[in-house]
Amino acid sequence: MSGAGAIPVAVQGLGPMGRVILGAAQRDPRLDVVAAVDIDPAMAGRSLGALDLAPEDVVISDTLPPAPEGGVLLHATGSYLEAVAGQFEAALAAGWHVVSTCEELSYPFVRHPALAASLDAAAREAGRSLLGTGVNPGLLMDRLPVFLTSASSDIRSIAVERVQDPTSRRLPFQRKVGMGLSRAEFDAKAAGGGFGHVGLEESGRLIAAGLDWRIDAWSRELRPVQPDPSAPVRGLVETLTGATGDGRRVSLHFEAQSGVAESYDAVTVEGTPPLSLRFEGGVLGDAATAAAVVRAAHVLPSAQRGLITVLDLPLRHRPPSG
Amino acid sequence: MSGAGAIPVAVQGLGPMGRVILGAAQRDPRLDVVAAVDIDPAMAGRSLGALDLAPEDVVISDTLPPAPEGGVLLHATGSYLEAVAGQFEAALAAGWHVVSTCEELSYPFVRHPALAASLDAAAREAGRSLLGTGVNPGLLMDRLPVFLTSASSDIRSIAVERVQDPTSRRLPFQRKVGMGLSRAEFDAKAAGGGFGHVGLEESGRLIAAGLDWRIDAWSRELRPVQPDPSAPVRGLVETLTGATGDGRRVSLHFEAQSGVAESYDAVTVEGTPPLSLRFEGGVLGDAATAAAVVRAAHVLPSAQRGLITVLDLPLRHRPPSG
Repeated sequence: MSGAGAIPVAVQGLGPMGRVILGAAQRDPRLDVVAAVDIDPAMAGRSLGALDLAPEDVVISDTLPPAPEGGVLLHATGSYLEAVAGQFEAALAAGWHVVSTCEELSYPFVRHPALAASLDAAAREAGRSLLGTGVNPGLLMDRLPVFLTSASSDIRSIAVERVQDPTSRRLPFQRKVGMGLSRAEFDAKAAGGGFGHVGLEESGRLIAAGLDWRIDAWSRELRPVQPDPSAPVRGLVETLTGATGDGRRVSLHFEAQSGVAESYDAVTVEGTPPLSLRFEGGVLGDAATAAAVVRAAHVLPSAQRGLITVLDLPLRHRPPSG
Repeated sequence: MSGAGAIPVAVQGLGPMGRVILGAAQRDPRLDVVAAVDIDPAMAGRSLGALDLAPEDVVISDTLPPAPEGGVLLHATGSYLEAVAGQFEAALAAGWHVVSTCEELSYPFVRHPALAASLDAAAREAGRSLLGTGVNPGLLMDRLPVFLTSASSDIRSIAVERVQDPTSRRLPFQRKVGMGLSRAEFDAKAAGGGFGHVGLEESGRLIAAGLDWRIDAWSRELRPVQPDPSAPVRGLVETLTGATGDGRRVSLHFEAQSGVAESYDAVTVEGTPPLSLRFEGGVLGDAATAAAVVRAAHVLPSAQRGLITVLDLPLRHRPPSG
């Protein structure tokens, strides 16, 4: 469904997340899905309709076509910046604005400073905007807490919790949080760096950037949830905390395990006034990530050029009349 | 307290709200309070210190001085645009950016289109930004729901509730919601247009603008809360609802009465995914309004010029390095 003056979008990466994004984009009257890209030989050359996707007549390509005027690429092929930076460079050169679920793109300035600088230069040279966002990182654990600083002064601490029951989530998500593993399997995978919510550090750094806080040191912890040592691991808890020299604190708590009583997201701000906000039942990750990507596509043409973050994203597309 | 490179601010209007704003600004290391303005002859000419306010050595003036480079005026003298528009014109001409708690300034394009156009022209000509915000209107019932549309697609309805016990609030607020009046007194005052949360319509229109929804008709209702007809009125409930031609709905519910079990603010979004967000204990209005004004002062110098709304406000001041 597309309306007059709709924004042309392409979707790159037709895995589970890309398909949810494609669906949200296709249902949005302000977007017009004009291209779909995936390198999987089983998909390239077929129509979306042949895969029970829509718009049915769009043929999947293994390379991104040149962008139509004002086109925005919705990109969902990977979490790690080094693996997908070449795709961003190609998309910018082809004239697309880019919004990507790549977690490391959400705040790449610390982990990948050289790559961030070269992507920023490429985007500016192309006159396009490049942004990493989903719901996490990109919204619940970073943009939302920064947004809330418009309702509280004298902030002494910000605590964010995302607590989820992975049982109803996709199998890859359950695997990612260690659900069902034995403790030995969990520990072996953890020792190899196989766990960890990609994006947690990026969220912490986004909060610090949004508040203009200088964090002296970040501390990160990961532990399995396994109340009964003979039973499989239920999932994991991961925390990231940081403090300024004068004692202001940021803490992020990510918990995904099958024993939670109820999924929820919460933000607690110690300040004037104090704020205690909670999403009852939590926020469903995949659908909310698709919404965040689609919403970014609405407003990205009004944003600054270059590599930007969600802190730079306008709240709306501003019509010329003001 | 002011840091290097702090933003110079003036505070105009030293009533109860202006004093809370002054306190928040004075405690903020990113702001430097350089002027205070009030037309009250009992205040003009005296130092803030003489009124037990800070910074102690700032002398209250009855007219706004010329702005220092990048100066922002924090304005809190009235709710109605026609009464304060002249103050905005003078402030813009004197070189100040302006953020004001004037409720009607938050979205003046419908109620006062000619005045909005002339203020926009004055601000553009002066190369300054003019914004109306507090926590309500300006945040809880408008900017926050629009913000949440980054986490949900296919939105069918947005419902916002602000429910407060006025007992702990300032006396003028208790009077404003009819607390303690007899039913006859309430009805007489209501018939004269003496009640009504100034800004509720502005919030509804901000949501519609932020979502690009065309609302065919708004419906507004106001009723007293008086469970026992022989007892004084407890307060009031005011609602505003609107719908698009295809049935998408916005509803705002403002309730301030002494019989509420607990104050809270809530936003419910019907969409993909659904969102149900609640501030436990509510958000304290005066302190949060001061925070909203102070935060706007941080970012206003990075905003577009002219008369803008909270939908146009950047989330942060963007450092030149990106």
